Amino acid sequence: MIQHHLQNFPVILASGSPRRKQLLESLDIPFTIQTKNIPENYPVYLQRQDIAQFLSRQKAYSIREHNMDAFIIAADTVVVQRNDVLGKPNTKEEAFTMLQRLSGTFHEVITGVTIVLGTKESTFFERTEVLFKNLSPEEIHYYLDKYQPYDKAGSYGIQEWLGMIGIQRIQGDFYNVVGLPLHRLSVEVDRFFDPSYTPVPHSPEVSSKYLYFNS
Amino acid sequence: MIQHHLQNFPVILASGSPRRKQLLESLDIPFTIQTKNIPENYPVYLQRQDIAQFLSRQKAYSIREHNMDAFIIAADTVVVQRNDVLGKPNTKEEAFTMLQRLSGTFHEVITGVTIVLGTKESTFFERTEVLFKNLSPEEIHYYLDKYQPYDKAGSYGIQEWLGMIGIQRIQGDFYNVVGLPLHRLSVEVDRFFDPSYTPVPHSPEVSSKYLYFNS
Repeated sequence: MIQHHLQNFPVILASGSPRRKQLLESLDIPFTIQTKNIPENYPVYLQRQDIAQFLSRQKAYSIREHNMDAFIIAADTVVVQRNDVLGKPNTKEEAFTMLQRLSGTFHEVITGVTIVLGTKESTFFERTEVLFKNLSPEEIHYYLDKYQPYDKAGSYGIQEWLGMIGIQRIQGDFYNVVGLPLHRLSVEVDRFFDPSYTPVPHSPEVSSKYLYFNS
Repeated sequence: MIQHHLQNFPVILASGSPRRKQLLESLDIPFTIQTKNIPENYPVYLQRQDIAQFLSRQKAYSIREHNMDAFIIAADTVVVQRNDVLGKPNTKEEAFTMLQRLSGTFHEVITGVTIVLGTKESTFFERTEVLFKNLSPEEIHYYLDKYQPYDKAGSYGIQEWLGMIGIQRIQGDFYNVVGLPLHRLSVEVDRFFDPSYTPVPHSPEVSSKYLYFNS
């Protein structure tokens, strides 16, 4: 269980995101926050999940040197639509264009996570598909004026008004879209401390129809 | 837009659930809460979504008489696994058995919603599929002791510790699992006030792979 594994180390979240802080708090794990301003650049040949994993590794590495006894958790979230990575919007116009683009279509939210303890580390990613309804210009303007989502890749938060009324369905982990895949994190922490750990396979009663996704 | 439609009426949420209250608050709509203690009984021949819709209608009807000028929102959520409806657990043992049953398998969460204004009304439901990982007895005990989920159908809250570390993926609307399908509610409110309203169909670029679900 994740709590038991982490109780013997100081835990550090290497992220300034208030949403990630809130999510990790909900796991009942004591932790502190440490971040270093690093440029969010990545090699041009990287794509999708490789970007998110690369940046999560950079964030974790940036604070490891002075925290060799700590368990570090770092994450980076990217929003991808038709092979384009959507970043954080700089202006209201950019945000409006981005949301109009997401309107009525599926996109993917991919969070890369790196966990580090001394010289041991593990990096993984989780992918969630998100379907927006057709958003009206009125709804987009209301959201942008009231919620100012300029710190959010893709220009929206699934836990805010537009995500609540606008997202028709998701496929995958909800918390991954918020910014930290909590289920996957807890599984990977179990695995980190017990290399022989394998999750029990699902019972055959689970229809193969469901297992098709994320394969 | 849902705010505009509802600004001319007192809005009443006919539910005592703190989770539904919180969700409706997030929609930036002023409302009050009114509930009447009614027995949660339903005809034995009803199944799944018909139970949730029937009970949501009962809840709305129970307060309509004295609120003929108000827009009433009522909801009922059921948890279904292999044709069995899982209720709220009465004891820790019952909750433990229920969670062991959900462990490692899919189940469905169905919320029925009734909206009422005077003699006009509309009832609908939304369905979300939820996949739990294999939960360890240690994880179930920790959750039950700490979170006491005795007011929750299925013995868990997706927004609590067990839902966060234990739910591998969902298919559908997250907020429907919490207790109120916010996207669908906003669409149905639009439709309620504008009978000619039809949501714009999705662009053909959305792969048919995705459209298979909930059909």
